[in-house]
Amino acid sequence: MVGIIMGSESDMRIMSAAADVLKELGVIYEITIVSAHRTPHRMVHYAESARRRGLKVIIAGAGGAAHLPGMVASLTTLPVIGVPVKSSNSIDGWDSILSILQMPAGVPVATVALDGAKNAGILAAQIIGTSDAAIAENLQRYKDELREKVEASIKNLENR
Amino acid sequence: MVGIIMGSESDMRIMSAAADVLKELGVIYEITIVSAHRTPHRMVHYAESARRRGLKVIIAGAGGAAHLPGMVASLTTLPVIGVPVKSSNSIDGWDSILSILQMPAGVPVATVALDGAKNAGILAAQIIGTSDAAIAENLQRYKDELREKVEASIKNLENR
Amino acid sequence: MVGIIMGSESDMRIMSAAADVLKELGVIYEITIVSAHRTPHRMVHYAESARRRGLKVIIAGAGGAAHLPGMVASLTTLPVIGVPVKSSNSIDGWDSILSILQMPAGVPVATVALDGAKNAGILAAQIIGTSDAAIAENLQRYKDELREKVEASIKNLENR
Amino acid sequence: MVGIIMGSESDMRIMSAAADVLKELGVIYEITIVSAHRTPHRMVHYAESARRRGLKVIIAGAGGAAHLPGMVASLTTLPVIGVPVKSSNSIDGWDSILSILQMPAGVPVATVALDGAKNAGILAAQIIGTSDAAIAENLQRYKDELREKVEASIKNLENR
Amino acid sequence: MVGIIMGSESDMRIMSAAADVLKELGVIYEITIVSAHRTPHRMVHYAESARRRGLKVIIAGAGGAAHLPGMVASLTTLPVIGVPVKSSNSIDGWDSILSILQMPAGVPVATVALDGAKNAGILAAQIIGTSDAAIAENLQRYKDELREKVEASIKNLENR
Amino acid sequence: MVGIIMGSESDMRIMSAAADVLKELGVIYEITIVSAHRTPHRMVHYAESARRRGLKVIIAGAGGAAHLPGMVASLTTLPVIGVPVKSSNSIDGWDSILSILQMPAGVPVATVALDGAKNAGILAAQIIGTSDAAIAENLQRYKDELREKVEASIKNLENR
Amino acid sequence: MVGIIMGSESDMRIMSAAADVLKELGVIYEITIVSAHRTPHRMVHYAESARRRGLKVIIAGAGGAAHLPGMVASLTTLPVIGVPVKSSNSIDGWDSILSILQMPAGVPVATVALDGAKNAGILAAQIIGTSDAAIAENLQRYKDELREKVEASIKNLENR
Amino acid sequence: MVGIIMGSESDMRIMSAAADVLKELGVIYEITIVSAHRTPHRMVHYAESARRRGLKVIIAGAGGAAHLPGMVASLTTLPVIGVPVKSSNSIDGWDSILSILQMPAGVPVATVALDGAKNAGILAAQIIGTSDAAIAENLQRYKDELREKVEASIKNLENR
Repeated sequence: MVGIIMGSESDMRIMSAAADVLKELGVIYEITIVSAHRTPHRMVHYAESARRRGLKVIIAGAGGAAHLPGMVASLTTLPVIGVPVKSSNSIDGWDSILSILQMPAGVPVATVALDGAKNAGILAAQIIGTSDAAIAENLQRYKDELREKVEASIKNLENR
Repeated sequence: MVGIIMGSESDMRIMSAAADVLKELGVIYEITIVSAHRTPHRMVHYAESARRRGLKVIIAGAGGAAHLPGMVASLTTLPVIGVPVKSSNSIDGWDSILSILQMPAGVPVATVALDGAKNAGILAAQIIGTSDAAIAENLQRYKDELREKVEASIKNLENR
Repeated sequence: MVGIIMGSESDMRIMSAAADVLKELGVIYEITIVSAHRTPHRMVHYAESARRRGLKVIIAGAGGAAHLPGMVASLTTLPVIGVPVKSSNSIDGWDSILSILQMPAGVPVATVALDGAKNAGILAAQIIGTSDAAIAENLQRYKDELREKVEASIKNLENR
Repeated sequence: MVGIIMGSESDMRIMSAAADVLKELGVIYEITIVSAHRTPHRMVHYAESARRRGLKVIIAGAGGAAHLPGMVASLTTLPVIGVPVKSSNSIDGWDSILSILQMPAGVPVATVALDGAKNAGILAAQIIGTSDAAIAENLQRYKDELREKVEASIKNLENR
Repeated sequence: MVGIIMGSESDMRIMSAAADVLKELGVIYEITIVSAHRTPHRMVHYAESARRRGLKVIIAGAGGAAHLPGMVASLTTLPVIGVPVKSSNSIDGWDSILSILQMPAGVPVATVALDGAKNAGILAAQIIGTSDAAIAENLQRYKDELREKVEASIKNLENR
Repeated sequence: MVGIIMGSESDMRIMSAAADVLKELGVIYEITIVSAHRTPHRMVHYAESARRRGLKVIIAGAGGAAHLPGMVASLTTLPVIGVPVKSSNSIDGWDSILSILQMPAGVPVATVALDGAKNAGILAAQIIGTSDAAIAENLQRYKDELREKVEASIKNLENR
Repeated sequence: MVGIIMGSESDMRIMSAAADVLKELGVIYEITIVSAHRTPHRMVHYAESARRRGLKVIIAGAGGAAHLPGMVASLTTLPVIGVPVKSSNSIDGWDSILSILQMPAGVPVATVALDGAKNAGILAAQIIGTSDAAIAENLQRYKDELREKVEASIKNLENR
Repeated sequence: MVGIIMGSESDMRIMSAAADVLKELGVIYEITIVSAHRTPHRMVHYAESARRRGLKVIIAGAGGAAHLPGMVASLTTLPVIGVPVKSSNSIDGWDSILSILQMPAGVPVATVALDGAKNAGILAAQIIGTSDAAIAENLQRYKDELREKVEASIKNLENR
C-alpha cells in the first residue's frame, strides 16, 4: 500500500494525480493531510507507524519551505517520494524543489518534477513492481499506451 | 537565555560567531547540536521544552535542505532565528536560504543572511533587549563601536 | 507596541496582514508609510525615535531594491523585521528578498518569506511574548488553532 | 541487484559512494559506464535488458545536460534513481539537476541531491527493503548509527 | 531537406514557426512527432536514418527535461538545432534551455532562444545556404526585409 | 569633481580602479568611506552637501545588501553611479546587483557591471565630458587606445 | 538634447515613460527606433554622429539579448543609459539585464532597473543638470514632489 | 573555410579547442581577434566580407555581455556559432549564455555550451559536412572514436 500525504488541503489540486495513476496501475493507496509545520506530532506518528501499518512507499507533496518529505524520511526507512508543489506561497517553485531535493547524506528523498504528482504515483508503482509481477505488468502496459498515444498523434498530424 | 543549535558539528565553523557576539553583548547562551534529520526526537524534545527551560530565543543554523529552524519553529512559540549555512552540500547557499526563509503563514522563522551567525546573535540580543535595559545599552554601545571602527578606517585612508 | 511601516501605500495590500494578525494576538500596533528613497529624513526620524516612543519591534515592508528595513535597522537597536514585497517593479521577488536578507555583519534584519506580512506580525508577537505572558498564551492558542484547522480539513477529506 | 551506471569514468569520483553504501547495507550491485551521448546503443541495450538480467533498481549519475537517467527510465519499468553530478562542464550543477528532475508525465526519475550518490545508494536499498526484511533491518541499523554519531558529536562538543 | 521534430503534439504551437519560415525561404522540410521518452526506438531510427533519407539538418524542439535534441545529436553526424520550448511542465524555460544547451564535448546541439522556432528555421536555411546559392539569396532578401520593416516603423513613429 | 565612496575599507581592492581611471582621464576626484549601515548620518551629510561642495557625480560601491548607492541617490539630485561589489558576504554578486539596480521610479542609480569600478570611473568622466571638452577629448583618446591594444594583440596572434 | 532609441516599435509601451519625464523636467529630446540586429548600419551612424548632432546623453532600451545600449556605447564617448525591457521574448528580464549591465572594462553602460524607462529619463536629466542650473532646479522640485506625494498618502492612510 | 573570432586574446585559452578539433576533422580555418566593443568597425567589416572571402561558417566566442556573436549574425547570412565564455568578468557564465542565446526573431545564433569551443568546432564541421562528403566521413570516424574511448574506459573499470 502507498501512503499519499500533503501539507494542506489546497495541495489536493496537484496531489490527486498521484492517486489517480495509482488506481489506474492497480496499486492500493491511502490519502490524507499531514502538515510538518502545523501538525508535527501527527507527522512523527504517521512516519513512524508507516511500515508496521503496511505501507511500502510514502508520497509526500509540499510547497514553499517544503519540509514534509524530508522530515518523514528522517523518521522511517521506507522510500519517500517528494513532490515539490508550486503553491501560491512559492517562488516559481525553486523553494519547494530545493527544500525537498537537497537532503543531507543519510536521509534520501526521491524527488520528482515540480507539480509531478503523476510521476510520483508511477514511481511508487515501480517500487511496488520490483516485488509484485502484476504491477510490473501494469507498468509495461502503461508504458506501451504512452507510446501508442504518440503514434496516434503522429497519424493525426499526418492527416491534417 | 538564548539557545544556539545547529545540524552538525561542522556548522560550528560558522555558528560559533553567534556565541561570540552574545558573550560580547552580555547575553547568556547554551550551544549544542540538534539534527532535524538524524535526531528528530531530540529536536522535538529540545523545541517543546525550550520555553519552560527558560530559553527566550532559539538560533538554529543549518545547510542544504535546512529543515531545523522551521521545524523548531513549528514546535515552540518562542522566536526562532534561522541561519542559512553555505555548507559543502549546498548549491551556493540558495537551498539553505529558501528552505529557511519561505515558511508558510502561521510559522515564522526570522532569517538572517547566508552564514550570518553574528547577526543572528545580535538579533537575539535585540529581542532580549526589548525587555532588558542593560542588554539594550550594550547594543547601543556595540552600534557606536561599529561607527567608530568606520571612522578609524576613514582616518587610515586619509593618512595613506 | 509594534510599528508597521512600508515604502508606499500600494504595499498595504500585503502589509495589512501584519496588522490583522497582531490585532488577533492582542498586540498593540501603529501603521504608517515611510519611504527610504522618497522620505529619507522621515525614515531617520522614525527609526531614531522608535525606542523612546515605546516601540519594541519594527516591521518594515518594501519591494524591489528594498532598503527600508536595513536602513531602519542601521538607525535603531530595536529588532527590525523585514517583509520582502513582490511589488510590480520586482523581479519575481528576488531583488526584494536579497536587498533585505543580505545585511552586513553588525546590522541584522529578521527577514520573513516573500509577501510574508502575516508571519512578520506573528514574529513580532513572539518577540513581545518573550516578556509578556499574556501574549505568549495568545500565541499558544493561535498555534493550537492552526493544528485544529488542519484536523478539520482531514475530517473534511475523509468525508468526501 | 542494483545497477549503477554513469556517463563517464570521471564520474566515479562521485558515484563510488553509491557502491560503498550499498556494500555497507548488504545490497548486491554491479557498476559500469554507459554514456547516453557516446554509446546510445549500449544504453538502450542496458536499460531494456535490465529487468530480465535481475536488476531491481538502476542508479544513473550524469553531469551537464544529463540525459542518461531519463533515457534509461524511458526504456525500462524499473525504478531509476538519478544523481546530478556537478562535473567540470556543469553550471554550478543547475543543468544536471534540471535535466534529471524535470521529466515529463509518464516517465519518472527519482532524483537525489547534487552529487548525492550516497543517498542514491540508500534509496536503492530502501526500495529493495520494501520486499527484503534483512535489508530493511540493515537500514534501521544504519539510521540508528546516524543518530549515534550525532550523539557522540554532542558529547564531543560538551567536553570541549 | 530539413527534418522538424518535436516531443509532443502540443509543441506544434511553437514549432510551426520553423516550418513557416522554411517555406518562406524556399527550403523543403518534413515535420513529425518523435518523443525521446515515449518513443525512444522511433527516435533512434529517425536519427540514424536521417542522413541517408536525404536530411541535411534536423530541428528538434522539446520542453522540461528536453532530451530529444541531444539524443538525436548522439545518433547522427548531421547538424542538430535544438529549440527549448517553454512548455507547461517547464520552470520558466530554464530546464529546457539547460537540458539542450549544456551538451558534453563531442556531441554539439545548436541551441536557439527559448521558443525560438523561427530562428531555428532561419538557421537551418543558413546551413543549407552554405552550399545552395538560391537559398543564400533568399536569406539576403529576408534580411533586407527585416531592415525595411524597421524603416517603416520609424516612418510610422515620425508621423505620429 | 567626482566623489568616490564605498561601504568599507575592504572595498578599496575593487574601487581603487575608479580612482585610477579618473586620474588617467584627467578628472579630479576625492575618495572616502561612507557606510550606509554603520555611519548613516555621515551618509546623509555626504549626500546632501555633495552638490554645494562642488561634486558633479558620485560613485558609490557596496556589496551584499548594497544600500549605499540608492540611499545617496535619495538624498541628492546629482547623478549617482553604483558599483555592485562581489564582497565575501555576497551570494555570487546577485544581492549586490539587485540591491543597486532595482531602484523604484523617481530615484535612479546608474548601475555598472559587477566589480565594474573602472567603468564607473569612465562613466563619471563621460558625464563630466558632456560639458567639458578637454575631458571629452581624453575619452576619445582612451577609446582609441582600447582599439589600438586590440590591434596589437591581433598582430601578436598572427606572429605566433 | 537627449536621444531616446529602442530596438523595436513595441518597446514604446515602456520607453515612452522616459520621454514623458524628460518633458516634465524641461529637457529636450528626440525619439526613434534603432535596431542593433536589424539595422546595424543605422546604429553605427546614429551613435557616431550623436555628439556632433548635439546629443549629450543617449537612452537605449532593448529586450532579450539586448545589444543596442552596449554597441552604441562602443561607438560614442557620450554617456549611454541602458533600459532592460522585459519584452515577450525575454526570460523574466534576466537576459535583458545581464546583456546590458555586464559590459567589459572600457565601455560602460549606465543601467537602470528592468522596465525603468522613467528612471532613465531622470538620470539623463541629472547628467544634463551637472552643467545646467535650471534643469538641476527642476530635479530638486521633482524630488520635493515625490516627498509630498508620500506625505499626502500618509495623511490619506491616517484618515481612513 | 571556418572563421574563428573572439573578443580578446585571453579567450584563446578556451577558443583554441575549436581550432584543434577543426584541424583534427580536416576543416580549414582562420583565427583572429574581433572585439564588438573595442573594434566595432573591424567587426562590421569582418562580418560583411565573410561570405565573399569564402567563409562558410563563423565561430564567435565572447564573455560577459557577449555581443560579438549576435552582432556578427546581424551583418551576415552565414551561420554563426556562439560560444559563451566564462571569463573573469562573467557572473558564473549566465551573462555570456543569455547574451548569446536570446537573440530576437530573424537573427539566429547557434549557441553551444558554456566554454564549449570544441563543440563549436564539431558543429562547424557538421555544417561543412552537409555538402562535403569527406568531412562527413571524418565526423563519423570521430563519433566512432568517442564510442571506442568509452568502451576502453569500461574495460579499464572492469579490470580494476
